[in-house]
Parts: sequence; structure tokens; C-alpha cells
Amino acid sequence: MTPRQRQRLIYRRRAPVGAPPGTLVADTNASPTAIRLTSISEEGATEKTAATVDDIRAALDSGGRVWVDVTGLADIETISAIGSLFSIDPLALEDVVNTNQRPKVDGYDTHALVVMHMFDGTSGHSKEQVSIVFDKKHVVTFQERPGDCLDPVRKRLAVPHGRFAKRGAAYLVYAILDTILDAYFPMLERIGEHLEEIEDEIAADPDPLDVKRLHSLKRELLIIKRALWPTREMLSALTREEFQLVPRDVARFLRDTYDHAVQLIEMVETYRELATGLYDLYLSSVSTRMNEVMKVLTIVATIFIPLSFLAGVWGMNFNPDASPWNMPELGAYYGYPAALASMLVVGLGLLAFFRWKRWM
Amino acid sequence: MTPRQRQRLIYRRRAPVGAPPGTLVADTNASPTAIRLTSISEEGATEKTAATVDDIRAALDSGGRVWVDVTGLADIETISAIGSLFSIDPLALEDVVNTNQRPKVDGYDTHALVVMHMFDGTSGHSKEQVSIVFDKKHVVTFQERPGDCLDPVRKRLAVPHGRFAKRGAAYLVYAILDTILDAYFPMLERIGEHLEEIEDEIAADPDPLDVKRLHSLKRELLIIKRALWPTREMLSALTREEFQLVPRDVARFLRDTYDHAVQLIEMVETYRELATGLYDLYLSSVSTRMNEVMKVLTIVATIFIPLSFLAGVWGMNFNPDASPWNMPELGAYYGYPAALASMLVVGLGLLAFFRWKRWM
Amino acid sequence: MTPRQRQRLIYRRRAPVGAPPGTLVADTNASPTAIRLTSISEEGATEKTAATVDDIRAALDSGGRVWVDVTGLADIETISAIGSLFSIDPLALEDVVNTNQRPKVDGYDTHALVVMHMFDGTSGHSKEQVSIVFDKKHVVTFQERPGDCLDPVRKRLAVPHGRFAKRGAAYLVYAILDTILDAYFPMLERIGEHLEEIEDEIAADPDPLDVKRLHSLKRELLIIKRALWPTREMLSALTREEFQLVPRDVARFLRDTYDHAVQLIEMVETYRELATGLYDLYLSSVSTRMNEVMKVLTIVATIFIPLSFLAGVWGMNFNPDASPWNMPELGAYYGYPAALASMLVVGLGLLAFFRWKRWM
Amino acid sequence: MTPRQRQRLIYRRRAPVGAPPGTLVADTNASPTAIRLTSISEEGATEKTAATVDDIRAALDSGGRVWVDVTGLADIETISAIGSLFSIDPLALEDVVNTNQRPKVDGYDTHALVVMHMFDGTSGHSKEQVSIVFDKKHVVTFQERPGDCLDPVRKRLAVPHGRFAKRGAAYLVYAILDTILDAYFPMLERIGEHLEEIEDEIAADPDPLDVKRLHSLKRELLIIKRALWPTREMLSALTREEFQLVPRDVARFLRDTYDHAVQLIEMVETYRELATGLYDLYLSSVSTRMNEVMKVLTIVATIFIPLSFLAGVWGMNFNPDASPWNMPELGAYYGYPAALASMLVVGLGLLAFFRWKRWM
Amino acid sequence: MTPRQRQRLIYRRRAPVGAPPGTLVADTNASPTAIRLTSISEEGATEKTAATVDDIRAALDSGGRVWVDVTGLADIETISAIGSLFSIDPLALEDVVNTNQRPKVDGYDTHALVVMHMFDGTSGHSKEQVSIVFDKKHVVTFQERPGDCLDPVRKRLAVPHGRFAKRGAAYLVYAILDTILDAYFPMLERIGEHLEEIEDEIAADPDPLDVKRLHSLKRELLIIKRALWPTREMLSALTREEFQLVPRDVARFLRDTYDHAVQLIEMVETYRELATGLYDLYLSSVSTRMNEVMKVLTIVATIFIPLSFLAGVWGMNFNPDASPWNMPELGAYYGYPAALASMLVVGLGLLAFFRWKRWM
Repeated sequence: MTPRQRQRLIYRRRAPVGAPPGTLVADTNASPTAIRLTSISEEGATEKTAATVDDIRAALDSGGRVWVDVTGLADIETISAIGSLFSIDPLALEDVVNTNQRPKVDGYDTHALVVMHMFDGTSGHSKEQVSIVFDKKHVVTFQERPGDCLDPVRKRLAVPHGRFAKRGAAYLVYAILDTILDAYFPMLERIGEHLEEIEDEIAADPDPLDVKRLHSLKRELLIIKRALWPTREMLSALTREEFQLVPRDVARFLRDTYDHAVQLIEMVETYRELATGLYDLYLSSVSTRMNEVMKVLTIVATIFIPLSFLAGVWGMNFNPDASPWNMPELGAYYGYPAALASMLVVGLGLLAFFRWKRWM
Repeated sequence: MTPRQRQRLIYRRRAPVGAPPGTLVADTNASPTAIRLTSISEEGATEKTAATVDDIRAALDSGGRVWVDVTGLADIETISAIGSLFSIDPLALEDVVNTNQRPKVDGYDTHALVVMHMFDGTSGHSKEQVSIVFDKKHVVTFQERPGDCLDPVRKRLAVPHGRFAKRGAAYLVYAILDTILDAYFPMLERIGEHLEEIEDEIAADPDPLDVKRLHSLKRELLIIKRALWPTREMLSALTREEFQLVPRDVARFLRDTYDHAVQLIEMVETYRELATGLYDLYLSSVSTRMNEVMKVLTIVATIFIPLSFLAGVWGMNFNPDASPWNMPELGAYYGYPAALASMLVVGLGLLAFFRWKRWM
Repeated sequence: MTPRQRQRLIYRRRAPVGAPPGTLVADTNASPTAIRLTSISEEGATEKTAATVDDIRAALDSGGRVWVDVTGLADIETISAIGSLFSIDPLALEDVVNTNQRPKVDGYDTHALVVMHMFDGTSGHSKEQVSIVFDKKHVVTFQERPGDCLDPVRKRLAVPHGRFAKRGAAYLVYAILDTILDAYFPMLERIGEHLEEIEDEIAADPDPLDVKRLHSLKRELLIIKRALWPTREMLSALTREEFQLVPRDVARFLRDTYDHAVQLIEMVETYRELATGLYDLYLSSVSTRMNEVMKVLTIVATIFIPLSFLAGVWGMNFNPDASPWNMPELGAYYGYPAALASMLVVGLGLLAFFRWKRWM
Repeated sequence: MTPRQRQRLIYRRRAPVGAPPGTLVADTNASPTAIRLTSISEEGATEKTAATVDDIRAALDSGGRVWVDVTGLADIETISAIGSLFSIDPLALEDVVNTNQRPKVDGYDTHALVVMHMFDGTSGHSKEQVSIVFDKKHVVTFQERPGDCLDPVRKRLAVPHGRFAKRGAAYLVYAILDTILDAYFPMLERIGEHLEEIEDEIAADPDPLDVKRLHSLKRELLIIKRALWPTREMLSALTREEFQLVPRDVARFLRDTYDHAVQLIEMVETYRELATGLYDLYLSSVSTRMNEVMKVLTIVATIFIPLSFLAGVWGMNFNPDASPWNMPELGAYYGYPAALASMLVVGLGLLAFFRWKRWM
Repeated sequence: MTPRQRQRLIYRRRAPVGAPPGTLVADTNASPTAIRLTSISEEGATEKTAATVDDIRAALDSGGRVWVDVTGLADIETISAIGSLFSIDPLALEDVVNTNQRPKVDGYDTHALVVMHMFDGTSGHSKEQVSIVFDKKHVVTFQERPGDCLDPVRKRLAVPHGRFAKRGAAYLVYAILDTILDAYFPMLERIGEHLEEIEDEIAADPDPLDVKRLHSLKRELLIIKRALWPTREMLSALTREEFQLVPRDVARFLRDTYDHAVQLIEMVETYRELATGLYDLYLSSVSTRMNEVMKVLTIVATIFIPLSFLAGVWGMNFNPDASPWNMPELGAYYGYPAALASMLVVGLGLLAFFRWKRWM
């Protein structure tokens, strides 16, 4: 895994320390800004890519409902202009541009800001902040990068006389949030499949690579967990009765989305616990295997070391001619067979001892 | 343990990402749908297996109380038809079909949806979602697979002038929930017995297999825990006074079921803690055993390595004839016995050292 | 520790799965039922062991206050009869017979059920469920086995004009609960003493047996913890003002009992944490000791292996007569002393290296 | 560390199991009782050591305000007499004598009991229960042993026209509690210094003794933690508006003491986490060091074992005269140098292999 | 890391144990006191460094708004004088001087004390307590050491007709708090970068140094966590409606600061969990590497030890002339090749065994 491919864990703030509130500073790595303008009407939505701020102004002046989808946050000027068009609070715009926000909902006088994290399959499941500003009529979304999972929403918008035409902005916001959250499921399923693979591998043949893969999955689960817990709170806040911008019938759908968030958190926690269990299983498998190897060394060494000593003794050069005490066995008639026999006895004795001690 | 036999940990959602709420999509692995229709009356219930939607409609038109038990969720059309007959909310029906719901209760205008997990002994204790929709009069249950633990309820229903005849739908729901929860007890007892077996084995002779069995028991306990915690919440919600569909006298029985859920959670937590303790015990047993083996190697090697060195020295071929300094001991009268004696002294000295250091 | 002596961790439910609420089924291992009837009056209590249901009925008819102490739960008929005499709710009786209840208090219309766990010194501190049913006047206790720690209560009851005569049933219930809870203290003190013993042993000479003893103490603490946490809740519920059966002056004593429960929980938690710390201490002591042993092997082996190699070289049989290049050192005048000296130099050099590396 | 010096972890209750509430039984190890009577007036307090119960009665009869400081709890009679003089509730007196109470505050009709733990520098920081009974006018303190940290309070009391003269009993109680809590700081600072010492030692040269010291510090922190958590609750209860015996201006000072308790808890938690981190650091340092040692063994052994084998081969006694196939190399002209060279090649090859594998 | 460079973990209280509340005692290591007086007006602020208490009095008498920034807490007299000028509560002043306070806000009658921890880049990110006392008009800040991160605030103050001129003291307090909190971000980013570095290193080549660095990062994170948790509470308390000194429009900005605190806590928790994961990864990497090394030893030793034994046997000096049984193989025609061949067979056989066992 190269550092490139890893999910970013280092958060960066762009505005210099001590800047006044509402200061907008673009990230140096931000993608170029592009606008997709969707005008919503009874006849189905019409979409204009590469729209300009003037297009939006014209659409607003004509009294229609719009969804402005801004991709890439490099162009601070355009973002400020859109902010002015929809009278977005400067603090909300600052959170849009500083893309390290936790998922949250901030209510302002006439509008609200919802921040969510999108793990988009189109770009290798890397995290992206999606900020959604909406009032009773219009929705503005800000994404960090081009490419998202919202095409099903766009298709459903295009259907004439669909649900979107009849309902207000809150239903569109619900559809966007639900779709982004739905995209967590395949990602988690992939992680779950990896975990089961690793489980099978560890059971069959534990490999140091398994630990690295486990570590990287736990890292991913950590990031997803950090995204999901505040998402649950955010969805719960959106469905509360005090929240005026969301009508009761949409809140009912959002409660379903909230259920999905709880289900996802459950999955993440289950997977995290499973990963920890697998780590323990790996450690004990490896140590079991190591123990087996060590036992063989122990047994072979412990049997042959005394035998080698005996061979060494009878290989000494004491001069039998100098004295009858000097290695008389070397000249004995059955000296060699007796020596071999004694070695055999010692070796078998040690083997028997190991068996008796149940070390084999 | 083959992947087949393992409890599934990978959750899958069926509806495509971004589908509108209430979309019903059958799981490709879903069992074929079968309906068992039970008409409840003062004279005891009559049961019709392999019933059709028309049978249900007829029973409803005749004004009787029914329990519709749907097994297998492959036939979306039939399920939708049943949903229409009982005016079940589309969101509730979606949860019935997407069988990864957590246990929960969702109240709708005239009816409620209760989701619970059944670990059915008849199919090897694998998890199955049971969804129960009920209003004041009727009960509809949806099971993932044929085979369940509800036969005692069916027998009691068949008794003429029994409790079921006099009480409404809520009492039947209570009986179903209580029976499903009761079936957790033998499953947990089996796990407890396995744990005690493993405890005895680890105490007697720790085996790497024990860790694998522990891991698989912890995995099962994890799944059961995930099923029980929300079940407790669900039962607590059902017994609350605000919940209109459950009369006070049934709520009183449900509080007993709630007590059982708490007891089960307690068992699960105790077993999980015990499993962790057993894992520690295993590790320390194995390392104790390994240490013993290693000590023998150490002692044997440490004693014989210096002795072999001595034998090696006296096995060198320096020529005693070339100089009086060259290995004169080889020609000494008591050279060999002295050499053996010195080896004995060194060996016994090392043994004594080890004993003194308490390494034996 | 034989399985016999271990605290039971496997819970069993007796009533078959799906039985209607209130079904009484005796445990096959239940002790035979015996009744001890205590009639309480101003002149002190009179006790009748081996009483019958008729005795109780007579006592009740005479208008006196009674404490019925039932030991052994094998005789379902008798228990039902007592239940009828005191109009005990069927659900309460079911909990009395299914002796796996958590400590709890259940309020019924005219009476209440208190469940508590007794660890009775008379039977080796094994767990026993004590169920106490009481109304304003009478107390019925159900114990699993003969033998308990309630004799001090019985003695105080026998005193004429004592506190018991003046106060109602609640004070007797308080005395029973307080006495049962008091009996936890000596049990925990024993565990604390064992822990301090193990601590001393590990500090002096760690032994694999210590881990087994720690495991068994942690197991006991786990069971006691599971008994104490709900006991605290139960006592707190009994002292609440809403609880009508307990007058304010008795609630004041019960708050003292509650304090004891908190103190006991504190002890259990302290002991559990201490046991975990001891386990870590054991592991590090053992690994320290193992490391010492391994270091000696390493040093001895590392020093003598090169020396043995040298002796092996000079023990080779290359023929010096065949060529002046062939082992001329063997015929050198100071060959042998030089060889020994070079071995000494190598050996001491390695020793110095080890010392320099601080490995000794 | 001898068992003597260790903080006691074994709690003991004195009153026999099942005794009626309010029974006073002295601990067999209790210190002899001594009374120090302080009469508080506008002109500064006057102190009488070795006072008797009659002295107290006289002081009370004269209408003055007193602080009765009882040291040693052996003399139950005297303690009961003092209890009667100040009409102390029997349950409160029982808690005074049974010195295993958690820190707490118990409100009675006219007075309150505050229990706190004093870790007194004068007796080696061993734990001591201080019980404080006070009403609007008088304060009675009970200490387990002579020697305490309250001398600064006594000095400030002796100052004429000081704060104590003007304020009631609650201010004196505040001063006592604050002083006892202040004495926790030097004790924790000492622990913190020990931890930093151990940290330096582990970084430089990990020693098994460090683990024993860590264990003993964690044990101390465990005891202090158990004392501080309920102390915080106790202080919070004292400052609550419902608590009538403490006027608002004193509650303000007590809130400051409460802040200190929170600060102390923070310190304890930080130290506990640090100790755990140090334990991990120790383990990894030791295993790093062990690994180094083992690597040297491995490399030396792995290089010399094959070489010794070669030397052994050429040391075999096959008779070259019997056949031209029998060890002709022994008689070759360059046999010996070639043998040495081949050994050198094998040795260097193995070294190169280890370097290439980065095992050195 | 020298002890000097480490963040201090040892807390010290200065006031002697038992001192009356409000006693001010300077820390012996406190920096000398210097005052920077900023007069705030519509025309922008004017700043006077090295101001005296008289300068402050003059500024106050002229009715202007001031920010008094006190650096260094050695001069108790000056601090007391400033306290008197702004009628600061003695308890608040005590907290200012005892620089071990947790972040908190204390409300007094006319003013409030906010305590916060500054990790100032200018002095190597070591912790420093900043105490802020403010009323409706004036702000007094106390810092432990010279050097801070507040220069951006000072610059914005100097701008004529800026926001500061129009808003009251609370806005200045907000700007100070927000700037101090902003300075946590670069510090945490640095830690995050270190963690990713260590992650790369462990993956490539685990080094014992990594553990020491991890330990030191975890230590830093512990200190930052201890600073952030109460900071969040403090900010939450400041934004509550009951808090009169903070107008609603400033509370809105403070809620943004509160969001940053939550974000920082999230970062700290993520980093702590990551550090733990890295520690596990390090351990398993090291043990994997060690296992590899040990396996080579095992295999080499296990193969050559039996071969050396064989060489030893044929190196024995039994006299073939003494008996036909004595080592006849030494004189056999193919004795030597057969011996070498048998060694080859044994060696290859063992190798094959290891391969078959998958130990290579």
C-alpha cells in the first residue's frame, strides 16, 4: 500500500491561525470548480453542466426551484458568489471550504448546512466531504472532487411528475443523503469479504501479510466509524420536530435513513471486533507454528548433543600404549558395537523421556 | 469449520443504491414463498398450509381473526399483495424483504412492525430474520426460511377456548416473541457447555485447536450479542404505556420476556468474558509448556557443549613426539580417567549451578 | 479444581420452550422440599420445622404473622399450594422455581417478589437463589438447598418484645437481605487473602499454578459481580418512595444495606483489577526468568561453538607427511600450548564482547 | 516490599454477620482512643488534649462551640458516650467504627456524617478513614490512628478573631476536608516522580525491577482512585443547595475543593494511563534486547555448525591405505589449506547471506 | 528525548497544604512578570509594552476599554494589584497563580475566569496555562511565559474601525480562545505526519526506535487529550444562554470554536487509536522477523547436528586391529564415499521433511 492509496489521516486547516471568522481560503490541492445546474419543475428536471453564476441567477430570477451542484472548491470567488445568491451564512461557507468538518447539521435563520462524508466507489473509496445547503425551495451541494454516486437521484429527478416535483427541497436533500449513505454498504461488504478471506487464510496458513491487511482494514474501519457516528447524530437532529426546514413526511423517510446509519455502525463495530479477534487468532496460530518448529529443534538437538559427546569421547587420542587405564575400550573385542549400542540406548532413552513428558 | 457452516457476517442490501424508498427487491438466494393461514376463533384455531392470497382475503372478508405466516421471501408479488390486504406501510414491507434489519419495533398508524432474529435449532442455529406485522386483530409473520421453533404456539392456538381465543393479536405476538427468545436458551447452554469443555481441556492439555474453537464460539457470541441488545430495547419499547397496540395485561407478560432478554444478555456477556479469560489461560499454559521444553534444551545443551569441547580438545592431533609440550596428557598413565573425571566434574558443576539458580 | 467444585456457569431453563407463562416445572436436580414455619408475635417467634401446608393455613387462619421458609424446590405441588395460600402471582412463582433469575424486585398488586443470590458458607460458597415473597404482614422465602446463613435472624426473632415483633414484614425482609449480603464479606475477604498470597508468590517465585488460581479467582469474582450489580439496583428500587410495601423507617435501614452492596461492588472491582495486574506481573516475571535462562544458553553456546570448531580443525587427519602444507602446526614445538592459548583468547574475547554489550 | 508496607486491600467488617443495625464492635487492631477538645470562640480556640467525655459535656453545657477530635477507635464505650452527647444517629456511629466506608455524606435530621480517606504523610501514606459528624455548631472528627495533616487548621483556629470564629461549623468542616485533600497532592507528585524515573530507566536499560515498581505504583494509584471518585461525589453532594447544613458562602469554597478533587482524579487517570504505556514500553524494550541476543546466537551457531561438520568429516578415521577412495584429500599436497579455504568460503558465504537478508 | 524536552506530567501545587483559600504563592520557577497594556478604541488599539500598574489605573480612570496581558507569574504583588484594580475574586486569582488548573470557566458576580491550555509553537509546543478574566468591558490575560500565538489578534485589534472596536470584551475573549485553539491544529498535524512516517517505517523495516517514538507521541496525545476534553466543556458552558457576559452574537462564533474543539478531540482519538494499531503492527512485524531468523537456525542446526554426530562416530578411535567388529567400515574399499553418501541422504531427507511440513 503506497502512501498515495491510503486514506488521509492528517487533517489540515487552510485558514491561517487567528484569521477572523468566515475567512475563505482555498486548499492548494483543491480541484477546479465546476457547476451543474438542475432546474426542477413538474415536467421533470433539466440539467445544465458547466453552468455559470449568471445561469444560476437567471434561474432564480425566473422563480424556479434549482439544485446547484458545485464540484471542486478551488475557485473561492465563484463559491462566494453562490453564497451571496443564496444568502448563505459566512460561517457555513467557511465549513464548506475547510473540508475537514465532521458530519453535522447547522441551522441558520433561513437555511441549513448539512455536512456528510461520501466514500465514492468511482474514485477508489476515498473520503470526500459533501456539504449541502438548503432552504425551503433550493438545494446547493458542494463536493470536493468530480465523480459521485448521485446519478440515481439525477435520473429520478428527470422523470416528469415524479415525487421530486411535488415535494420541496427537503425531499431532495433526503434523497441525496440516503444515496450517499447507501454507498457505504458495498464498501463495508467489500471489507467484510476481505475479513472472511483473511479468516480462512489464517485458519489454513497464517502469513505476516495477513496482519498488514488486517491493519489496513482496521484503519479503513476507523475512518468509516469516525464518519458514521456523527452522521447518525446529524440524521437524528434532522428528524427532530424542532427542525423546521424538514416537513414531517420527509422526516419519516429520514428516520429510515437513520436506521440505515445505525445498521452501518453496527456492521463497522462487528467488523472491528472481528478484526481484533482475527489478530488474536493470527498471533496464536503463528506462535503455535513456531512452537512446533522449536520443539523439533529441541528434540533433535537434545538427543544428538549427548550422542555427539560420546563420539567425541571415543575420538580422543589418549595413548592406550602408555597405560592400561588409557581408553582400554578402544581395543576391546566388542568395543565398537558396544559403543554404538550404548549410543542407541541413550538416544532411545531420551526419545522415550520426551514421549513420556508428552513433548512430542 | 467450512465457510458454509459459519454464521454469515457479511450483510448485503438488495435494493440498488439510490432506489426510492419502499422499493422491494428479492434476494437472489431467497427461499420460495409459502403461506400458512391460521384462523383464530373461540373453538380453537384452524390451520391451512400452502394457502393463497385469495384464501387470506376470504378469511378477512368473513370477519375472522387470522395469523398469516409467510415463509420464504422470494415472491415479491405475493408479499406486496399481502401488504396491500393488511395495508402495511411500504417502508415496513421494505424492511421485511431486506433481511438485515436490527431487531426493532416501528409503529405505524394502525399497525406495527416488530423485527427479531430467530436462531432456529432446526437449521443448525443459523440466524434468520422474523418480521411480525400486527394490528389490533391480525398478525402477519415473515420468515426467511421454512422451519421454525413456533410449533408450541401453534399447538396452544389449536386448543379450544384457550387464552388465545380471548385475547387479541398482541397476546399472539407476545407468544411468538417469547417462544423465539426461549429458543436462545438451549443455544447458549450449548455454548456454555463447549466453554466448560474447552476449560477442562486447556487445564489438562492445551491444544491449538482450542483457540480455533474459542474463536468460533466468540464469533457466535458476537452475533448473538448483536441480536440481543436491540431485542431488549425493542421489548422495552413494546411494554411502554405509549404503545397503544399492546394492552396492559399483555405488556405485563412482555415485561417477563424482557427479563429473559436481560438474563440472556447477562449470559452472553459472562460467556464472552469467560472466553477471553480462557484465551489468556491458553496462552499462559502454552507458554508454560514451551518454557519447560526450552529449559530442557538449554540445560542439556549448556552441559554437553563444554564437555564436547573438552573431548574435541583431547581429540586434536598435535604430535606428542614433536615436543614435550604437545599434549603430554595423552600419554600420561591416568590421562584418560583424569579426563573423564574432569568432564564429570564440569558436568556436575553445571548441574549444581542450574539447581542453585532454580532453573530446574 | 474438579468440575464439581466449580461454580456453575451454565444456566438452564426448566420450562419447555414455548410453554405458556406461569408454567411450573421442577428441576430434575432440585432438593426435596421442606417447610419451616415461624409464627411471629409480641412474645417472640415460635418455630416449627417440617411443617405442612395445613400448618401454614392454620397459622394464617389464626390471624398471626408468619415467616414460611421453604427449602428445596422439588415439590411443585406444595409450592403451588403455598402460592395459593398467599395469592402469589403465577409469574412470581415461575421465577421462584426457575432458579436462574437475576437479583430483582417485582412489585405485584398486594405483594412483591425479591430475588437474591446467597453464597452460603455452609455449602462451600456455591451460589443459591433465594426468592422472598412478602406482603404487609407475611414473608415467604424459597431456598434452593438446605443450609443458609440466616440463623442470626432466627435468633433475633426468638427474642421476646424485640424489634421484629413491633415492625411489619418489611423489617424481616430487610434483616434477611442484610444478612445474606453480609455473608458476601467473609467470602470476598477470603478471595482478597488468596490474591495477596498469589502476589507474594509471584514476587518470590512465579509458578504456572498461580495463573490457574488467578483464573479460578477471576471466575469467582465474575460470578459474584454478576450477582452484586443487579442486587444494588434491587436494593435501590426497594428504598424508593414509590415502593409502598416498605415503610420509610425500614427504607432507611435498607439504604445502609445498599451502601454495603456498593462497598462490595467496589471490592469486587478492585480485586478484578488487581487480578489483571497480577496476571501481567506473572507474565513479565516468567518472561524475565525465561530470558535469563536463554541468555545463559546463548552465552555458553556462542562461546563454545567457535572453540569446538577450532578443536575440530586441529582434530582433522590431514597427513603432515604428505606435504609441508598439511597441518604443520601439529608438529610445531609449541603447537598445543599455542592452540590452547588461541582458544582462551577467542573465549575471553567473546566474553568481553558480551560484557561490553551488557548482555550479562 | 513486605506485606506490612503494602496498602491494605483486604477489607474486613467487624460486626458479626446478621447483627442488628447500629451494633458497635471495635476492631481488634484499633488504636487506643484519645480525645482532643478544641473550644472555639472569638478570642481564638483553646485546645485540651487527653480530654474526657466529661470535659466535652462541660464545654457543651457552657454553650460554647467545640471541635472534638477522637483518635483511635478501640474504646467503644467512649465513642458511644460522645455519640449520645451529640445525639449522633446509631447508623452513623456504626459507619464511624467500621472503617471500611467509602467516602460519602449521609444527612440525618440535625446533623450529617462525612466520611473521607486520609493518606497521611506522617505514617507513610497509608490509608486512614476520617469520619466527620457536624451540626450547625459543633464538629466531631474520628480518626483511626494518631497523627494527621490537620495541624495547619489547628494553627489557623488558634488565631484570635480569625475566619473560624465568625463562621459556623461548616467552614471548619470545609477547612478539614480541603486540608486532607491537599495532602493527596504531594503523594501523587511522589508517584509522578517515580513514574518519570522508571520511564528514564526503561529507556536507558530495562530491568525486571521496573515492572515490580510499576505494579506497586499501579496498586497505589488503584487505591487512591477508589478513594477519590466517591470523594468527588461527596463534595458535589455537600455543595448542592438542598444540603441545609452548608451555607452558600461555604459551598462556594467547597466548590473549589471539588475542583481540586477533579484535578486529582485527572492526575490519577493520567498516571494510570502512563503506567500502562510504560509497561508496554518495558515489554517491547525487553523483547528487543532479547531479540538482539538471540540473533547473535543464531548467527554464530548457524555459521559454525556447518564448519564444525566439515572439520568433523575430515577428522574421520577412514583408512586411506585400504582404498584410493578413502579420504584421498587427507594426503593431497594442498589438502589442508584447501580445507581451510573451503571453510572460509562457507563461513563468509553465510555471513553474506545474513547481511543480504538484513538479519544483522 | 531528554527529561527537559518532555512535557511535564508532574503537577505541583504551590500553596502550602492547609493554607486558607485565596492564598497566593509564586512558583519558584515562575518567569518574571511583564505587562502589555492595550487600549481599545474606535481608532484602533494602542499598545504599551512594559506597562505598570499605574498605567493601567490611568487607562481605567480615563474610561477606556483595555486588554491587560500579564506574562510571567513571579511578581505576586503586581498580580494582586491588578486583581484589586479589576476587583477579581481571590479564588480566581489563586487559580491564575496555581498553573495546574484544568481548562474551565468560573462565573463570578461581575466577571468570569476562563482557563485554557496553550501549546505554543514559539517554545517547542510545551504546555502553558492561559487565564482570562473578563467583564463586560475589560479583558485581563495571564500567561506563564513570554511568547504566544496571539499576534494575529493584536494585528486585527490595531485596525481602526474593526470588529473589535464595535464589540465588547466577549468578542476579544472569543478571538483569543479561537486563536489559541487554532494553534492546536499544526501541532496535531505534525503528530499525524510523525505517525504516518512511523507507519511507513514499520511496514518497511521495524526498528525498536519506532516504539520509543510511538510512546512519546502517545504521551503527547495524552497531554493534549487532557487539555481538550475540559476545553470542550468550557466552550459549551460559555455558549449557554445562562452565561450573561457573552452576548448571543458572540456565542454564535464560540459555537464555531466549540466545533473546532470537537474536531480536535476526534483527531486526538483517531491518532491514539492509530498509535495503538501501529504498536500492534510493530510487535507482529518484529515477531515475524524474529521467527524467520529462528527458523533458519532451527533448520541449519537440525540438519547438521545429526550429520556432525555421524562424522563424530567415524572419527572414533576404536582399534580395527583389535577385533573385526571394531569399525570395519573404516577399512572398507568404498567406506568413505559411502559415509559421505549416507550423510547426504540424511541431510536431504531432513530438508525434504521440513519442506513437507511447510516450515521453509
